[in-house]
Amino acid sequence: MKICLAQINSKVADLKYNAEKICKLIESCQALPIEQKPDLIVFPEMALTGYTPKDLLFHEGFRRDCQNILKEEIIIKITIPTLIGSIHEEFGNLYNSVFFIEDKQIKKIIHKKLLPNYEVFNEKRYFSSGSSDKLSDYLIQVKKQNLGILICEDLLGLENNFEFNDFNNLEKLKNLSEKDNQSFDSIICLAASPFREGQPEKRLKILKKAHQDYFKASNFVLINLVGGQDDLIFDGNSLILNQNGELLYSAKSFEEEVKVIDLNQKLETPNALPDKNKLQEIIGALILGIQDYFAKTGFKKAFIGISGGIDSALVACLAERALGSENVFGVMMPSKYSSEGSIKDSEKLLTNLKIKSKCISIEEILQVYLKQIGLSQLTLAEENLQSRIRGTTLMALANAEGALVLATGNKSEFAVGYATLYGDMCGAIAPIGDLYKTQVQEMSKFFSEIPTEIIIKPPSAELRPNQKDTDSLPDYAELDKILKFYLEDKLNAAEIIEQKGFSAELTKKIINLIKKAEFKRQQAPIILKVSGCSFGSDWLYSVITR
Amino acid sequence: MKICLAQINSKVADLKYNAEKICKLIESCQALPIEQKPDLIVFPEMALTGYTPKDLLFHEGFRRDCQNILKEEIIIKITIPTLIGSIHEEFGNLYNSVFFIEDKQIKKIIHKKLLPNYEVFNEKRYFSSGSSDKLSDYLIQVKKQNLGILICEDLLGLENNFEFNDFNNLEKLKNLSEKDNQSFDSIICLAASPFREGQPEKRLKILKKAHQDYFKASNFVLINLVGGQDDLIFDGNSLILNQNGELLYSAKSFEEEVKVIDLNQKLETPNALPDKNKLQEIIGALILGIQDYFAKTGFKKAFIGISGGIDSALVACLAERALGSENVFGVMMPSKYSSEGSIKDSEKLLTNLKIKSKCISIEEILQVYLKQIGLSQLTLAEENLQSRIRGTTLMALANAEGALVLATGNKSEFAVGYATLYGDMCGAIAPIGDLYKTQVQEMSKFFSEIPTEIIIKPPSAELRPNQKDTDSLPDYAELDKILKFYLEDKLNAAEIIEQKGFSAELTKKIINLIKKAEFKRQQAPIILKVSGCSFGSDWLYSVITR
Repeated sequence: MKICLAQINSKVADLKYNAEKICKLIESCQALPIEQKPDLIVFPEMALTGYTPKDLLFHEGFRRDCQNILKEEIIIKITIPTLIGSIHEEFGNLYNSVFFIEDKQIKKIIHKKLLPNYEVFNEKRYFSSGSSDKLSDYLIQVKKQNLGILICEDLLGLENNFEFNDFNNLEKLKNLSEKDNQSFDSIICLAASPFREGQPEKRLKILKKAHQDYFKASNFVLINLVGGQDDLIFDGNSLILNQNGELLYSAKSFEEEVKVIDLNQKLETPNALPDKNKLQEIIGALILGIQDYFAKTGFKKAFIGISGGIDSALVACLAERALGSENVFGVMMPSKYSSEGSIKDSEKLLTNLKIKSKCISIEEILQVYLKQIGLSQLTLAEENLQSRIRGTTLMALANAEGALVLATGNKSEFAVGYATLYGDMCGAIAPIGDLYKTQVQEMSKFFSEIPTEIIIKPPSAELRPNQKDTDSLPDYAELDKILKFYLEDKLNAAEIIEQKGFSAELTKKIINLIKKAEFKRQQAPIILKVSGCSFGSDWLYSVITR
Repeated sequence: MKICLAQINSKVADLKYNAEKICKLIESCQALPIEQKPDLIVFPEMALTGYTPKDLLFHEGFRRDCQNILKEEIIIKITIPTLIGSIHEEFGNLYNSVFFIEDKQIKKIIHKKLLPNYEVFNEKRYFSSGSSDKLSDYLIQVKKQNLGILICEDLLGLENNFEFNDFNNLEKLKNLSEKDNQSFDSIICLAASPFREGQPEKRLKILKKAHQDYFKASNFVLINLVGGQDDLIFDGNSLILNQNGELLYSAKSFEEEVKVIDLNQKLETPNALPDKNKLQEIIGALILGIQDYFAKTGFKKAFIGISGGIDSALVACLAERALGSENVFGVMMPSKYSSEGSIKDSEKLLTNLKIKSKCISIEEILQVYLKQIGLSQLTLAEENLQSRIRGTTLMALANAEGALVLATGNKSEFAVGYATLYGDMCGAIAPIGDLYKTQVQEMSKFFSEIPTEIIIKPPSAELRPNQKDTDSLPDYAELDKILKFYLEDKLNAAEIIEQKGFSAELTKKIINLIKKAEFKRQQAPIILKVSGCSFGSDWLYSVITR
């Protein structure tokens, strides 16, 4: 059996755009010479709607549009058997569904059984669970082959051994197939599984485990969405295992790909996932995240405040890769507290990156503010004021050019509130807002445009004379460790102190800072998610909790 | 039977504070002379944790602290039968539970059956549903009386005839009680039901319907939480119906109240809810919302930009009522586009309110910015710049005083994006962010401090010469109607045009503006919720959806 993996980049809720993309792809498959033609085309989960339209799903008009465009624009064009993810409404229930279409007709609709409602997922807000009582709730046939159809969590819930789910779906499916004395030639899973560090490798492991523990004689096909969507980055990386559980094919990361694969082809030597550096993988994710935010909101140009520090340098590099040097503007905004080195290093960076640049001193603006407001120098209020003048300046430049601002804050700063709201927190997105400072330092080494001076200098906000981040924060190496234990591993103060050996004073201080900074995070730009716990749809905390 | 309604204001996740409040109240009940002593004390849903700790519930340490403080600080003090809402963990499942405590022991733990996961509710993210198989899953006995214990949605789901829930819980309970041949003397419901316009009256209707349709011979007791919690305002308004379904008692709105009520007392004439004007009710909610945000985050003082328009005037009045005139600072920040009337009207308002004031011209700051940035006048960029200078000025003043800024935007503006991010959108909370402009206009008439000139003048942002809001927006009367149809009734463009008779051009323009403004709302201050659909935890939309 030949399967066409249609790893596409849908736009959330842009049904017309998605339908056109889907139709074009189907038509090009149908136009192939007979020996190359696939037996089945598979699109990802919710390929027609994008993942996820969120509360738009409550609008009856939107739901109706989904059904209509599928019926009127897509189905009538399909002759080759095709699986498309979309939504389906039936008896007042809404489902996350797969449409099996053949000969211009819907042959079957299969609903998602396990609805993830944790981390970034919120599916129980919108969907009902599909029935899982009978084998026919999962099964379709193509060319007399039995195909088991699963949707994302239905299979990937195995990652946590289905402990976040209502039941073990693979166990259930296995039992149903044994009861009916049927076996699956292939298990096909349509997914919208977002990127996080190490996730592509983890998906392969899950597939191999599902093969090993449940369906030893089946092929496994995992087709994943690709593309940036607000804070989430879908990485593609679709996978195929042959009946021996060996990796037959792995699709591209962070790119659309359409590929016809013969499931029965002989495998001389088993494939492996391309050996990628973890940070390089994250770089790929961030570039796609930036690219798609701009492309999908219709913007082209980005403004970045260049401080001479490592954070803004890295953001400038990522933006240059994502948008092209002609679309990125670096703005230096020195004050009397800016060191000479910072300005020189910034200039070097801007020259290396070949991006447009501007230098606007904030000193005169600051002085007028201080005079008009009657504010003292060298106070926290003055520090924040400098940061807000820079934010305002950047926004004005961006407004005048129809551009967006990229925020340069990192995860360590967002965590402890070492950032100024409406100041350096200005921006449409924060590309490195899910990277700890220590990760920023490591990642910067991959960009030859960043002068060594920037990489090695001690971090400073330069908002008062000779300021260093370590004046008010511990060394980032130590800070980031504590943050990780608290944020990703969900350890509490006692556990971090007793099990990990950090001082009680420091640990409590940091956790307290995290809680007190919640009001800032609630007004933060969109932070591109690359970790297991980012400050975004995966972070729901109350502001008044102190 | 005498019941003590303990309508308390918990602080989310401040277990020590909540436990102390609970203990003090229990001790004072226990110290009452025997004839006044209640037979049962009832606290609201999640009274110990506050509603709701959100992702803190994922922290094992927090869950353990909840169990420990209940056991070690509270239970040991309780002799009178008491019902307290908190969380309970069992076999790896977390429940939203009621603890029935007597003689210093937990006699029973009853779990919530129906978990709301719509609008502002997200309970399936955290909790498992309690079993509802047996009558004992609901039943406790006090003084040989049968009491049916429900938690919020378990009863209030009746509002939507349980269509958002997995089953009709009242039907189920009725069937179980008939099967076991048991009847309930009272149904007691512990709730954390947030305020929205008309909600207190609706709760009474629900209770009466539950009495009428399911348990005609039972008393009904609904004990509700009170207090502001981020965007949600719990209004109290606890209710008691006697066995005839008549209103026996209604507790205070927007205040804590502890009251012992004899369920069997004779009712000469049935009570009714106090007849309140809808807008006055909303004013009460907003004042509590402001008050609690400040009290619970530890702030006292507020800064408000006073423009001479109606929005800032109303916010200043609400803040004065909530925080006291000595804690509110009105700041006028005129530019050359400010009309003479605006400055005079502002001064009149500030004098009437007896709040401190300051006048800082932004003209010189604006000119320096324009020069330094090289920006043209009379562009959108210049308009935004003025707004951001004002935001920055307010933030600097507030920073210097350890105060918070209140944003003055209304719902009509947040909807269509007629507000400047990092400018007039600066602030910790937006007190009138869930009021349409037409509501703001109506509500202002309740405040005698607002000069008539402010109420009758045509709305203007005064960011360019002779600007009026109607230059770029339709009349607010018309705009607000379309917004309501789209936001609250979830009608789509076609329905608004065909069924409601608005022009296609205008309707589509407005819906388009709503979508395009999503990036602003994602960085907006906390908006106090008073409507059925506010821009906050009840509004989940993707930014890139256009």
